[in-house]
Amino acid sequence: MSDLDKLITLFESFPGIGARQARRFAFHVLTMNDAHNAQLAKLITGIKTSVTECESCHRFFSRYQAETLCSICSASNRDHSRLLVVERDSDIQAMERAGAYDGLYFVLGGTVPLLQSKDTEKLRAGALKATVETRLKNGLEEVILGFAINPDGENTTRFIESIIEPLLAAENKKLTHLGRGLSTGSELEYADGDTLKNALKNRY
Amino acid sequence: MSDLDKLITLFESFPGIGARQARRFAFHVLTMNDAHNAQLAKLITGIKTSVTECESCHRFFSRYQAETLCSICSASNRDHSRLLVVERDSDIQAMERAGAYDGLYFVLGGTVPLLQSKDTEKLRAGALKATVETRLKNGLEEVILGFAINPDGENTTRFIESIIEPLLAAENKKLTHLGRGLSTGSELEYADGDTLKNALKNRY
Amino acid sequence: MSDLDKLITLFESFPGIGARQARRFAFHVLTMNDAHNAQLAKLITGIKTSVTECESCHRFFSRYQAETLCSICSASNRDHSRLLVVERDSDIQAMERAGAYDGLYFVLGGTVPLLQSKDTEKLRAGALKATVETRLKNGLEEVILGFAINPDGENTTRFIESIIEPLLAAENKKLTHLGRGLSTGSELEYADGDTLKNALKNRY
Amino acid sequence: MSDLDKLITLFESFPGIGARQARRFAFHVLTMNDAHNAQLAKLITGIKTSVTECESCHRFFSRYQAETLCSICSASNRDHSRLLVVERDSDIQAMERAGAYDGLYFVLGGTVPLLQSKDTEKLRAGALKATVETRLKNGLEEVILGFAINPDGENTTRFIESIIEPLLAAENKKLTHLGRGLSTGSELEYADGDTLKNALKNRY
Repeated sequence: MSDLDKLITLFESFPGIGARQARRFAFHVLTMNDAHNAQLAKLITGIKTSVTECESCHRFFSRYQAETLCSICSASNRDHSRLLVVERDSDIQAMERAGAYDGLYFVLGGTVPLLQSKDTEKLRAGALKATVETRLKNGLEEVILGFAINPDGENTTRFIESIIEPLLAAENKKLTHLGRGLSTGSELEYADGDTLKNALKNRY
Repeated sequence: MSDLDKLITLFESFPGIGARQARRFAFHVLTMNDAHNAQLAKLITGIKTSVTECESCHRFFSRYQAETLCSICSASNRDHSRLLVVERDSDIQAMERAGAYDGLYFVLGGTVPLLQSKDTEKLRAGALKATVETRLKNGLEEVILGFAINPDGENTTRFIESIIEPLLAAENKKLTHLGRGLSTGSELEYADGDTLKNALKNRY
Repeated sequence: MSDLDKLITLFESFPGIGARQARRFAFHVLTMNDAHNAQLAKLITGIKTSVTECESCHRFFSRYQAETLCSICSASNRDHSRLLVVERDSDIQAMERAGAYDGLYFVLGGTVPLLQSKDTEKLRAGALKATVETRLKNGLEEVILGFAINPDGENTTRFIESIIEPLLAAENKKLTHLGRGLSTGSELEYADGDTLKNALKNRY
Repeated sequence: MSDLDKLITLFESFPGIGARQARRFAFHVLTMNDAHNAQLAKLITGIKTSVTECESCHRFFSRYQAETLCSICSASNRDHSRLLVVERDSDIQAMERAGAYDGLYFVLGGTVPLLQSKDTEKLRAGALKATVETRLKNGLEEVILGFAINPDGENTTRFIESIIEPLLAAENKKLTHLGRGLSTGSELEYADGDTLKNALKNRY
């Protein structure tokens, strides 16, 4: 396999990239000047040095010194009594943009697909359990599960519940889920039954 | 204008139909046999005789005898203490399919667009006011507003609130709205701020 | 079945209309005034009187008196030596809009699907054969097949060739096909092999 | 700007990649192991050494030794009397896949946009002129222009014609264009006027 084909293959492993676009990427690199490519290569090899995983919530953050906690986990004004468990780093970004939550987060790192018998080892289920156990000794009052409202997200909810509900129940603490109902853009005519049931239950 | 052009123009007034499809419809009529077209014409002219507007909720229903109330409004086992106001007949269908609501309905017949200065005369705002006044003397406890979660729907909500909130407040009865939050298919990453705020507020 | 359901079912038979939109159409009729619906019904039942099929090309046209030929077939300045066979009336409209053709047309009325064993009886294959035979005695020099460039269109081309090629060959007249190549909007990178081959062959 | 933001910005410059996907790419790199990232970086910096631009047609090819011509330009069985000028390397791939052309190519490297006053300096117009002049002394009979059938492609055609038509005319050689007409998938009803005119002109 030629170097060009190797490069195309690596680009094909990028999320959402097919053969044709991977080839475009390789041609893009070929037309960029050497300084640009050198910088790109340097950032790719070095990014893990300057970006690290937060020890507490496991999201990635840019480390400037030797800090091990991200800006949210190290902030003094966040509410440490609540922990919102999400699938991805980008879910945290969306919540922070909304400015509606001031508690802490935990990034599970994936979902438990309903149909595939994918191993759940990549998920940080063990780390979540340990985090909940530690935080229960430090004022944790509520764990909120915030996975997608789809089969994989709901399967993940059940999986995580089975792990942490006993811990929370033993301490008489709450396990909650993000509320369901009509979301922005919803019309009754096109909403599914579950959404309508929840919209009625959560009426305000 | 030829008869063909007249027919095409009438089909263009059908909801969601443009010039090209209106022409297709006219050609469809041209290729159908006379018996088919006669039946279609008879149903079009006669439909208002057999389908009538419910005197109470204003949705259309097929009348078999001289009844003036639809099957929901005339059912003995519906909860008459709650009234859900919706835009369209099809919203009622969606709620009934979900099987989550056993109260009564009221079809407003449209929305109050935010940007257009469309007259609100076609809406049954006066009829809604009269219905609420009458039902308040007969055990009404709650009016639920169930319009779409978009600018027009929200503008309609404010318009209807301005009309019926005083009536309900005077009798110490509730005016509520369908609950908001994550709907089926929602992912945090793609949800807007309002939806996330509501999802957090309505967590369960 | 109620009259409303009957009307919805008839609207569902309209080209491209599903259950939901058919229901909308029925509601549209219910909200229109009686005069509007009476006019619609009258046009539906009477359209076949005022719009008739051209005896020569078989497209529909609005008849004002007792004419049996459409404006194209009865025009004195069209080139009667060429006959373009197309699937639908709307194909003629597109050709006339382009202003590129001054010969005559024949509307086959459908295609011969490649996969379905649909009967070909609805197609005007017999009428086309008769038309070609008659026109051969009146100066016809060329029949052009103008079906879609897709499996059904190409299957139809083969079917019609089998019927009229012998007639034309016997008189030493031409059977041609609309030219293939890059169409407006085409980019080489996304063009299929056949299109590129034809583009090269038809280079000018 | 943090290293993470720098990397995201570089990924945003990749063709067709927006802010969200660029961020995904950066996270993808963060989750890959060091060996994978080291290989990716090495290929990015080294690709220009192993992939070079063909001296004759200017497309990129993987160089194994010190060759300066790509496999097409150095093949003994290609027809050197014809030269097909295209915009991009990927256009050559499409033509070769179609297997319809056995002449030589020239990659212009871009288009002359109709509306933007973009400089044409990046295009290899000078190199094309020199190539045509040289090849005219070596049996060149025909230059085929194969740009996209859209405003930019047609503007590019006019620009290139102005440069090389005089050269070819002086030697009594041909300048041609890829043929136009119905392409695979075309239906008459939806085809534009130019395509229909060409389809009629190129009928076969």
